Amino acid sequence: MQIPVIPGTGDAVLAQRLDQLIDDKTKPRGSLGVLEQIARQIGLIQRSERPRVDKTQIIVCAGDHGVVAEGISAYPQSVTWQMVENFLQQGAAINVFARQHGCPLQIVDAGVNHDFGVRAGLLDRKIAGGTRNFAQQPAMSEQQCAQALAHGMALVAELDCDVIGFGEMGIGNTTAAAAIMHKLTGIPVHACVGAGTGLPPQGVARKQQVIEAAVALHADANAPLEVLRTFGGFEIAMIAGGMLQAAQRRMVLLIDGFIVSSALLVAARLQPAILDYCLFSHCSDEAGHRGMLKHLQARPLMQLDLRLGEGTGSVLALPLLHSAVAFLEQMATFSSAQVSEKNA
Amino acid sequence: MQIPVIPGTGDAVLAQRLDQLIDDKTKPRGSLGVLEQIARQIGLIQRSERPRVDKTQIIVCAGDHGVVAEGISAYPQSVTWQMVENFLQQGAAINVFARQHGCPLQIVDAGVNHDFGVRAGLLDRKIAGGTRNFAQQPAMSEQQCAQALAHGMALVAELDCDVIGFGEMGIGNTTAAAAIMHKLTGIPVHACVGAGTGLPPQGVARKQQVIEAAVALHADANAPLEVLRTFGGFEIAMIAGGMLQAAQRRMVLLIDGFIVSSALLVAARLQPAILDYCLFSHCSDEAGHRGMLKHLQARPLMQLDLRLGEGTGSVLALPLLHSAVAFLEQMATFSSAQVSEKNA
Repeated sequence: MQIPVIPGTGDAVLAQRLDQLIDDKTKPRGSLGVLEQIARQIGLIQRSERPRVDKTQIIVCAGDHGVVAEGISAYPQSVTWQMVENFLQQGAAINVFARQHGCPLQIVDAGVNHDFGVRAGLLDRKIAGGTRNFAQQPAMSEQQCAQALAHGMALVAELDCDVIGFGEMGIGNTTAAAAIMHKLTGIPVHACVGAGTGLPPQGVARKQQVIEAAVALHADANAPLEVLRTFGGFEIAMIAGGMLQAAQRRMVLLIDGFIVSSALLVAARLQPAILDYCLFSHCSDEAGHRGMLKHLQARPLMQLDLRLGEGTGSVLALPLLHSAVAFLEQMATFSSAQVSEKNA
Repeated sequence: MQIPVIPGTGDAVLAQRLDQLIDDKTKPRGSLGVLEQIARQIGLIQRSERPRVDKTQIIVCAGDHGVVAEGISAYPQSVTWQMVENFLQQGAAINVFARQHGCPLQIVDAGVNHDFGVRAGLLDRKIAGGTRNFAQQPAMSEQQCAQALAHGMALVAELDCDVIGFGEMGIGNTTAAAAIMHKLTGIPVHACVGAGTGLPPQGVARKQQVIEAAVALHADANAPLEVLRTFGGFEIAMIAGGMLQAAQRRMVLLIDGFIVSSALLVAARLQPAILDYCLFSHCSDEAGHRGMLKHLQARPLMQLDLRLGEGTGSVLALPLLHSAVAFLEQMATFSSAQVSEKNA
């Protein structure tokens, strides 16, 4: 399997031109704050003075996790497939928010422990009916992990869009993401684990013990793809593959919460320049996310105490991208509006 | 002039019912974070289990400030009227963002030092061609201040809307707002002043000195309406009046940045329960705003380093209100979607 090579977006001439365009708008210099940074970054990603975010896409990948056998989740595994059904019935939060923002939503079965049959609106990319229990053995075989990455890349290769956000569903996947975080950042396990969907304190302690034991068991898994296959999920691998493909195609990557960021940790270890393509939609209330963002030197656009996943944070941030592109395109300049500039 | 009496929104029975509706949605309890709080608050404001934010309105009030004679702004006073022209030509940031979100925008001349004549799109509520210089005398007469408050109330009394946001334009008005903040919160002047539209450090120091001298000069101005008339602006008074009227009519008040929050400080000292009706859109990059929000025990929805005013922060936060109301209305419940609840 070929990992796409991601070039950085650096371009001093274009960056200066974008700064000029932004500073010439009828507002005190810098007064649109983060929106100015977004406009500049999207301009650089798209190599354009007139960036566009018209074509958006959310892809939600669902997968089950063998590690749920260790009792690390507040909800039973069946909730994964039940929530996929809920997505297909348009009843979940991500459906509501995607509809609100006119953003196409694709649901993908990356490896749910359920037979959905052929279903309208569900893309079948099932690797297996859930990963193995990483408390006992690697979650995926090398082949399974490569296949999940390849599916993610192929999915994105078919898309024509400006902005892509990934979401996920998978009971147990904060445990997988916390293990990946620990291995790829070196942050102690206790600072990587959180309450997930709502574990009580003793549940969080149990989760921490399970991860610490598994990390000891798989002490030789250190390379990013090895970490991914040992502790990850099919949905996490598919998202990592999709992200790499999206950046290579110069899409804006709108990053969701804890799980999606764990996929990015893997992708960024493989191709560090992928970070040039990322906008971080929010800081999740899941305990480890703040540390993960700090490790990535990322500043999240919003802090809304979300901890739902599904890509909800990403889609909620979409209006800010639209605003950034809109002010750059539509605002008057000091000269066109005949507004006086700053006192000398 | 009669100040409207604002009742609190407390209703234990409705609050419990809203919590139940929110918790029954197919998501881990609390996982939509701040959006859940918004839904609950708007429900209480509107006394409804099905809150609505369909009808929105932004009102931008512009006024000039005599204190600019003290050299406290980075831009010349003429920028106030030039920016009003820019609003009328649809070229400013607030025009772009209001259009993006389909939000009606009303521009009001509260007291700009310019003769606009009769202009489509501009509401003439001019009290005078700018306030007096509060470094020498009170900015407004008692009558002017009362008139500005009354105009604000009357403006809002004509509106039929669910959500109202106020914006402002007025060279020099961060100086007015900082003085109001100091007087009504007791926070030292140095922690209330900031760079405004872009003062260099020596300009900020000058601004601080001007305010400190004026505070000493007007040591007897302590009641909220006296503070408003002594240091405020016509636009600030008009906004304060509009806010009081809006809360009495049980509209959701979407609070913008530093200047608009200074108007709220006045309104909240007159009618403390007005805070039940407020959602704080963002924390401005203007230095004093954080302290002002803390004093109001307010948590801003966004932190985007904006410092533009015009109501831009408010209108940028509108999609979050729509999301809050949409999840409450549209998401499936655990029972309707047949999703398993949390493990016992």
